[in-house]
Amino acid sequence: MEITINDAAKKISQNKNIAIAPHVNPDGDGLGSTLGLYHALVKSGHNVKIFVDDDIPNAFRFLPGWENFIRPEEQVDGIDLLIVLDAEPERIGRVTEVIKAPILNLDHHRSNTKTANFLYLAPERAATGEIIYLLLDNMQIELDTNIAICLYTAIATDCGFFKYSNTSSFTMQTAAKMLDYGVEPNRISEALEQKKFTDVKILPAVIDTLTLYNDGKIAIISVTKDIKENCDSTADFVEYARIIEGVDVAIVVKYSDDKVTRISMRSKYTDVASIAEKLGGGGHIRAAGCTINDDLVNARKCILAVVEAEMAAK
Amino acid sequence: MEITINDAAKKISQNKNIAIAPHVNPDGDGLGSTLGLYHALVKSGHNVKIFVDDDIPNAFRFLPGWENFIRPEEQVDGIDLLIVLDAEPERIGRVTEVIKAPILNLDHHRSNTKTANFLYLAPERAATGEIIYLLLDNMQIELDTNIAICLYTAIATDCGFFKYSNTSSFTMQTAAKMLDYGVEPNRISEALEQKKFTDVKILPAVIDTLTLYNDGKIAIISVTKDIKENCDSTADFVEYARIIEGVDVAIVVKYSDDKVTRISMRSKYTDVASIAEKLGGGGHIRAAGCTINDDLVNARKCILAVVEAEMAAK
Repeated sequence: MEITINDAAKKISQNKNIAIAPHVNPDGDGLGSTLGLYHALVKSGHNVKIFVDDDIPNAFRFLPGWENFIRPEEQVDGIDLLIVLDAEPERIGRVTEVIKAPILNLDHHRSNTKTANFLYLAPERAATGEIIYLLLDNMQIELDTNIAICLYTAIATDCGFFKYSNTSSFTMQTAAKMLDYGVEPNRISEALEQKKFTDVKILPAVIDTLTLYNDGKIAIISVTKDIKENCDSTADFVEYARIIEGVDVAIVVKYSDDKVTRISMRSKYTDVASIAEKLGGGGHIRAAGCTINDDLVNARKCILAVVEAEMAAK
Repeated sequence: MEITINDAAKKISQNKNIAIAPHVNPDGDGLGSTLGLYHALVKSGHNVKIFVDDDIPNAFRFLPGWENFIRPEEQVDGIDLLIVLDAEPERIGRVTEVIKAPILNLDHHRSNTKTANFLYLAPERAATGEIIYLLLDNMQIELDTNIAICLYTAIATDCGFFKYSNTSSFTMQTAAKMLDYGVEPNRISEALEQKKFTDVKILPAVIDTLTLYNDGKIAIISVTKDIKENCDSTADFVEYARIIEGVDVAIVVKYSDDKVTRISMRSKYTDVASIAEKLGGGGHIRAAGCTINDDLVNARKCILAVVEAEMAAK
């Protein structure tokens, strides 16, 4: 059932033993929101545990408290409320298997499946980090530097460091407040942008796969099994397609398994969320993704055909 | 003589015929501040002309009004006040030759030579764009979308899109206000970051030249004659060296002529200004450059030896 942020705040206040979990394949918003809320609730006297059914990427290991994340393995008892952040409960892996508690879901993805017991969904927000900021304001929990670093990271990473179309005046005002609490934006961007030498050296192989289609309006990059196995993070690769003059839809097709390929899309004009939804995925109008159960070569042909058809129909 | 922003506002209000000029080698802050002030003063009934003694880079030709810039060539009469933005009057080229009027200088560079008739200097500001925002507020000139696009660009480019250490809470609050006036941050970053397909496709050749030295503390990239001739801008290449984990000094050696090589350095700890000075160049502690009168291969060996010696001496 959908509730207000005020109800969400009340629900949290009424429960002592709380677990928080972001989605698998965790990003800055998932991890930052979880840790920001974690620090705030610990401060206000709750017993809080945080879970993630995945590794924490190295880039995020500057976030205060990241070492407190628990991998869900055995049954966890005594939890009153499980707060799921930045995705629906289906996307938190085994956490829902090991914790049996009512679920409060806070999210900004309009593709949210609305299966949680209680859901506060705010698709107008650039990041779940903004929702946590509003929640803490509602709960009258004073921010501090640790909370601010986590929420700043959540917000900045989900709006492309204030460059994406989801960046609102509120987004920048909230980030400004985090700076007042001691966030040093250069330290955060340095930590997030740092790359292994091998990750830079893999770029030629990545850029070799870059091709333009549809009069230069579509750009596709392939992340082969070999590329994927030889680098730490593939998250930035889409940028090399997105920044090209005239490109509307930038696509990365990424090897996941011999018959499973992951698709990420960014766009300037085309609604890529609706394309992703047709293929069983989801996301935002300008940033969405899906999975195609086929090998990399076929998946690349498939997504190109779907995007071309979508663009021709407009 | 140094004056307050209130005095600067009065001085502008008292003069009807105004010229505005940013420094040569114009950047986003110089151009954006000039155009933002231009639109505001035209709106409030001044006669305004804008001058720049240089080409306007293509990347900035989305700024509303850029086509009104005049190249200083012949004497310009009837100007009551010349406003110099984002640098001291010595850096506006021939503008001071063709316009003989009292100079009001608005700047945020600590290195300002203080030679203007009237100077408002605010080194605590991340960009001259912030100063123009405060000035218009003082003059009670209502912003509009055109002014906001110009001031947003001025601010965002001078603080590395809110990633540099000069980004303050005020910087982000001011940018937030520009969004309220209709700035679409994605459109501005897209315009500024846009690259030709060929400029992305040259990256493999650039990254092939990237090598680490000195236990990974030094990274060098070569921009050969061939690479230079086949791309629009080489300015970002140093980033591929700078972002590598453990790298202190990132160096780009760039072909200029068969016996002339240009060196650019960025550092996290080492004082590269003093290294550059030893080789007849200069710059800031963390960003400096020089020229070596030798071919690319020898110049690369030379700068490596000098930097290694400098690091060994510390």
